[in-house]
Amino acid sequence: MRLTRYFLPVTKETPADAQIVSHQLMLRAGLIRQTAAGIYAWLPLGFRVLNRIEQIVREEQDRAGAIELLMPTIQSADLWRQSGRYDAYGPEMLRFPDRKGTEMLYGPTNEEMITQIFLGSVKSYRDLPRTLYHIQWKFRDEVRPRFGIMRGREFLMKDAYSFDLDEDGLKASYEAMFVAYLRTFARLGLQAVPVKAPTGPIGGDLSHEFHILAETGESAIFYDAALEDISRDELLSADAATIARLTSLYAMEEEEHAKVAECPVPAERLRSRRGIEVGHIFAFGTKYSASMGLSVQTADGTSLHPQMGSYGVGVSRLMGAIIEASHDSSGIVWPESVAPFRVGLINMRADDAKVTSAADDIYSRLQNAGVDTLYDDRDERGGAKFASMDLIGLPWQLIVGPRGLERGVVELKNRATGEREELSLESALARLTA
Amino acid sequence: MRLTRYFLPVTKETPADAQIVSHQLMLRAGLIRQTAAGIYAWLPLGFRVLNRIEQIVREEQDRAGAIELLMPTIQSADLWRQSGRYDAYGPEMLRFPDRKGTEMLYGPTNEEMITQIFLGSVKSYRDLPRTLYHIQWKFRDEVRPRFGIMRGREFLMKDAYSFDLDEDGLKASYEAMFVAYLRTFARLGLQAVPVKAPTGPIGGDLSHEFHILAETGESAIFYDAALEDISRDELLSADAATIARLTSLYAMEEEEHAKVAECPVPAERLRSRRGIEVGHIFAFGTKYSASMGLSVQTADGTSLHPQMGSYGVGVSRLMGAIIEASHDSSGIVWPESVAPFRVGLINMRADDAKVTSAADDIYSRLQNAGVDTLYDDRDERGGAKFASMDLIGLPWQLIVGPRGLERGVVELKNRATGEREELSLESALARLTA
Repeated sequence: MRLTRYFLPVTKETPADAQIVSHQLMLRAGLIRQTAAGIYAWLPLGFRVLNRIEQIVREEQDRAGAIELLMPTIQSADLWRQSGRYDAYGPEMLRFPDRKGTEMLYGPTNEEMITQIFLGSVKSYRDLPRTLYHIQWKFRDEVRPRFGIMRGREFLMKDAYSFDLDEDGLKASYEAMFVAYLRTFARLGLQAVPVKAPTGPIGGDLSHEFHILAETGESAIFYDAALEDISRDELLSADAATIARLTSLYAMEEEEHAKVAECPVPAERLRSRRGIEVGHIFAFGTKYSASMGLSVQTADGTSLHPQMGSYGVGVSRLMGAIIEASHDSSGIVWPESVAPFRVGLINMRADDAKVTSAADDIYSRLQNAGVDTLYDDRDERGGAKFASMDLIGLPWQLIVGPRGLERGVVELKNRATGEREELSLESALARLTA
Repeated sequence: MRLTRYFLPVTKETPADAQIVSHQLMLRAGLIRQTAAGIYAWLPLGFRVLNRIEQIVREEQDRAGAIELLMPTIQSADLWRQSGRYDAYGPEMLRFPDRKGTEMLYGPTNEEMITQIFLGSVKSYRDLPRTLYHIQWKFRDEVRPRFGIMRGREFLMKDAYSFDLDEDGLKASYEAMFVAYLRTFARLGLQAVPVKAPTGPIGGDLSHEFHILAETGESAIFYDAALEDISRDELLSADAATIARLTSLYAMEEEEHAKVAECPVPAERLRSRRGIEVGHIFAFGTKYSASMGLSVQTADGTSLHPQMGSYGVGVSRLMGAIIEASHDSSGIVWPESVAPFRVGLINMRADDAKVTSAADDIYSRLQNAGVDTLYDDRDERGGAKFASMDLIGLPWQLIVGPRGLERGVVELKNRATGEREELSLESALARLTA
């Protein structure tokens, strides 16, 4: 993409109302724009990152055998009355009448709806187990939206729902999602700590939250230092044994930790850091299947209420968490897996025909090789271009200038390490297309 | 995908409340499920088709140089007051206060928001022209939702917005979108007729609707028979000359046609068929840029209000239009470009180890070759499997049965033509992976 044809409104000023670094950087790097309190538009660069995060989440759901569908954003209040949650849910739920006065709501979650869909489709034990998921916009009418998209009102969430015949089945579905989450966060370049969670209003007896460790997290997490030793490779090849090991290690949110009479972790191994919650999984059994009358026939002709679980990931929130975990004083440092473009190509002298012709040629070659490239072809000073590229945080910068070209070299900069290298054009291309 | 692990609730019964064939087939083939009046969930098979349509729309927008972003579903009423449309818009707009009493709405379109975003980002003529688009859920509170997703309340739409320095620029942007639309509909396997439209409340002086000809269309279209002679190849390579030719041919909606004093088309060339509106483009000039105070600096230091246009495609509605245009008495006949799977593999005897082993092997080979395959591995009668496959309308059916296997052959059926052929397994695979 040529910057002269793109839409990338970056700014130098740090927005006064943005308190945390991810919010500041997302505004400055032209990723998002606020359109109302707690509501944001995803500008082209931010939209690309959102898509990449979403795609990794999707691939890991598919890999776990979950099946994607898409439920609507607007639901009827009557549906929520069937489970008894309509009155139980707080004012975070956006409720309104439609033009005929029918009570509607903007869905904050979909347990009722998926149970209703299942109810109309599945009659027999042979159709179980199934895990269904969707990635859809949700609304939570926060009284005090803040931290940009980290605690906005309209947000993108992946929510999955499992249906099993018995508790063993539910446990297996829960573990499959646990594995999917470990792999998802590892692929996003994040270190996520699974924390045993109280099950609260959703019910059931098994629940974990996944927290990204970052200074700006909402709550403190107390955990066994051994959790820090788990490698990315181990997470990427996670299985039931990995989960058993992980969940045997102590990790609690502040509030729950305070309730523990005697912490099982020796003081020298107990760590405390702040965490950003990016995922939450629940096994809640028959809470919805029983209240909404979902039954399936068993092999012996009797019927039962399926055992259910639900599994959420804050897709849009993950972008904030990634930035909180990966930035420096110059800007964002995207992990390769979610970077909006892999390479930022900088033409140092757009007013010099020779340099421009060389940079244009490199751009075509990168494009032909399928390397996502943002080409800064603007007629601007080099310094401004460097600052913008550092701010938007693409993994590689390829710098083409008149002095280098005379010597037959270009400069390749690694955004994460800051390392710069002079290379022949061919070597640089070989490196980036490898 | 194995059907024994999928979620595909097909039904034989024609739903009583579905009046048109696309609505009936979408319910019967397990593509959608109604969750409230005029609101639908997209079941896994329907979601796959929706994605394919969306992707073709996206590719043609990108090809036209439009840049994708994503605006939120919920907007503030104040934004719409700036353009004066808040009070002008009818009760189809879903309006509600949030928990603090701020007036909000579920966006039916985004002219105001994109103008606001542009206003905060672009100052100079050098940043024009630009066309931005998004593909997002919209809500239109229809008083009488009907025809399934064809006239539902929550629907997916692609809307693009162009910004130009002058009217010539606007004309070029308009033509680029016109070309994108012709290509999009041709790729979707549809014959679309561009109809000159009255500009109405959106203002401006240039507007076209794109109608798919189908018996169940909402309005009659009167047009020159010469429009039927335009080939798919011509549409796929459309340019300004194609548009000039197309728009020179008479095509009017009923109501506008009735106002024409003397129809320029000789009676023997005048056709009348019903049309489903799937796209609408407008050049409206400075209506929003002027009312919302969007100005850019020109090269000579003065400033001007950009000339704007907006360009909509009904993405979810297209699925209904495709089915209306492509079905038979047995079910849907998907064009290859949007089919949820390319091949339906039928195991005729899941209780026969030899047949199942052969079918399993074919399934792996199709998967390895990257052919999207839905594998009916259920232990059901062949007749029921045939009926389901015809209903869901995948382009190819590959049938593996005991008698054929003895002779070393499988059967390949083309859903559109109904043609069946016995082939060696290798020939069948070669055909499907070609």
